[in-house]
Amino acid sequence: MPFSSKDLTAIDTPAVLIDLDIAKRNIQRFQDYADRHGLRVRPHIKTHKLPTIAEMQLAAGAIGVTCQKVSEAEAMVSGSNAIRDVLITYNIIGAAKLERLKALAGKVNLSVVADSRAVVDGLSATFHAAPAPLVVLVECNTGANRCGVATVEEAENLAVAIQAAPGLVFGGLMTYPPAGGEAQVERFMRQATTRINARGLTVPVVSSGGTPSMMHAARSPITTEYRPGTYVYNDRSLVARGVCGWEDCALNVLATVVSVPAPDRAVIDAGSKTLTSDLLGLAGYGHVLGRDDVTIDQLSEEHGRLVSTGAIGLAVGDKVRIVPNHVCVVTNMVDAVMVTSGDRTGPEIWPVVARGKIV
Amino acid sequence: MPFSSKDLTAIDTPAVLIDLDIAKRNIQRFQDYADRHGLRVRPHIKTHKLPTIAEMQLAAGAIGVTCQKVSEAEAMVSGSNAIRDVLITYNIIGAAKLERLKALAGKVNLSVVADSRAVVDGLSATFHAAPAPLVVLVECNTGANRCGVATVEEAENLAVAIQAAPGLVFGGLMTYPPAGGEAQVERFMRQATTRINARGLTVPVVSSGGTPSMMHAARSPITTEYRPGTYVYNDRSLVARGVCGWEDCALNVLATVVSVPAPDRAVIDAGSKTLTSDLLGLAGYGHVLGRDDVTIDQLSEEHGRLVSTGAIGLAVGDKVRIVPNHVCVVTNMVDAVMVTSGDRTGPEIWPVVARGKIV
Repeated sequence: MPFSSKDLTAIDTPAVLIDLDIAKRNIQRFQDYADRHGLRVRPHIKTHKLPTIAEMQLAAGAIGVTCQKVSEAEAMVSGSNAIRDVLITYNIIGAAKLERLKALAGKVNLSVVADSRAVVDGLSATFHAAPAPLVVLVECNTGANRCGVATVEEAENLAVAIQAAPGLVFGGLMTYPPAGGEAQVERFMRQATTRINARGLTVPVVSSGGTPSMMHAARSPITTEYRPGTYVYNDRSLVARGVCGWEDCALNVLATVVSVPAPDRAVIDAGSKTLTSDLLGLAGYGHVLGRDDVTIDQLSEEHGRLVSTGAIGLAVGDKVRIVPNHVCVVTNMVDAVMVTSGDRTGPEIWPVVARGKIV
Repeated sequence: MPFSSKDLTAIDTPAVLIDLDIAKRNIQRFQDYADRHGLRVRPHIKTHKLPTIAEMQLAAGAIGVTCQKVSEAEAMVSGSNAIRDVLITYNIIGAAKLERLKALAGKVNLSVVADSRAVVDGLSATFHAAPAPLVVLVECNTGANRCGVATVEEAENLAVAIQAAPGLVFGGLMTYPPAGGEAQVERFMRQATTRINARGLTVPVVSSGGTPSMMHAARSPITTEYRPGTYVYNDRSLVARGVCGWEDCALNVLATVVSVPAPDRAVIDAGSKTLTSDLLGLAGYGHVLGRDDVTIDQLSEEHGRLVSTGAIGLAVGDKVRIVPNHVCVVTNMVDAVMVTSGDRTGPEIWPVVARGKIV
């Protein structure tokens, strides 16, 4: 592992550690799968929020990146000259965000999604006099029941409405499917494509996403593009689903034991302000590497409580490495991460450029 | 309410709104209770993370503030000349934090806690040659089972060890009790005080905390000081416990509806990056004001899903106000809050000075 024990001793905690060698291996693994199956890769940057890692994904063969907010896209585009193609998979609402979207569209190849006429109308009102039309994909609900048009008829009608709207051009279909939902994706997207083609429009992109089933993405042959996010770092939720092993987890939280108040209990300085309360259906708030006997059973903001089935075997001042339940939310909690790889002489501090970006 | 509908229309979302008039009323309510019962108030700043609100608490009669980290204390002290007395209720471990603690001790009246000899040894090694001794309280476990010495014997021995340690002086006893734990606090603290007195030491401070039972703090007469945090804003967890009403909630999250994909469902632009996944034992991730029929049943980072028992009755672009489950973690998610009161002409943007502060 690139982090030496000397590195770990010197790092003040809690800290988020990134092993770039593991991240590179994770990026390459999915790129190879996608290349084999003729899928284009458009990674979601919300997991790392780092222009430099987006550059690694692009260098491996990704065609562009995915962002969830205009503000994230702004941070990534200004952070790297290599990021020139951005899909924002979110309904952009309101004058302030639309104006920022318009400014961004002048700088890079930009596309967005919409799942209603109200969103399309707002986009058209902003872009009707723009120098180039904005590419808009229709977001489709294929079973995750979050956003997205509910039926293929609605997808068809919204595609036609986008194409007819001044300043917009229809760019394809997008979904965030339920895990293992390749069959639903295939059925919805194929029917919608047939209908849209019958209205005289092509469907240039069918975009799906999600790390848990990414290695089965090709089970939906109509999918042209895939948007994995978490795959770059992996996390406890993915190990629990059997998607990867602990050795594939590129992000660890380093914490220090601050109290050992009972023989089976210790308290660390990583709480919900670092690990977050995301459970993703799991019991406990993370995995202490090398300690299958330990559960992180309780978090307060600055404390994490470790309980063991036997003796806790830790002393005040000891450091532990934790794989969090959900890495995407952890990178949002810290202003910087500690990065290392076999190529580097020591850990570097990288500011998490697209952290926060609430609005 | 100081936020006018015109204000709300102009605010880009998601946004955290603070009503200072409600916050002032909340501060005064507990200060009045404490004054009636001879309790000193030392509010925890982790809830607001704002020097200006700490100044309001001090102006109302608080004797100082509580912080959970050296970095929080640094931010508060450099943010306000009025903050001159700080208790850090945390075991400070490691050379980097101890050096910062030492620098801070030169600027303000500073006290910390310890629950082990290891922590006391680190503090003493740092302060043995300091111009003034550091005040150290013994943290006691009165039933919350997080940090703290487990027995009154340990409390006695650690108090004596602190007093004997070069550079340190014993400052009293501190606990973060379970809600409703006044009887446990009274029993532990009285027994420990008797033992410590018998060793020739006085116990100048007995410090307890927690908003849920703050209005019963006087049921433990040995308690001299109380550290409420959440009381300044209140939240859904406190309304659920019957501690306050919605009209006492000084912090709201303002969100915009971005999708209405089904008659009983809407999606807003506040997800776990704003509301957080903290449940605090509740079902759902917040309360939509005026909509008892609605549950926020699912969050992803940038989406919150609202489901109604009837018709959702919302349109894309509508704004909703949410009381979050847990306000302390929400203020940590945003770089700034929007603040208003009857005295002001319009909302002001206040940077959340002590946000983050991970290390």
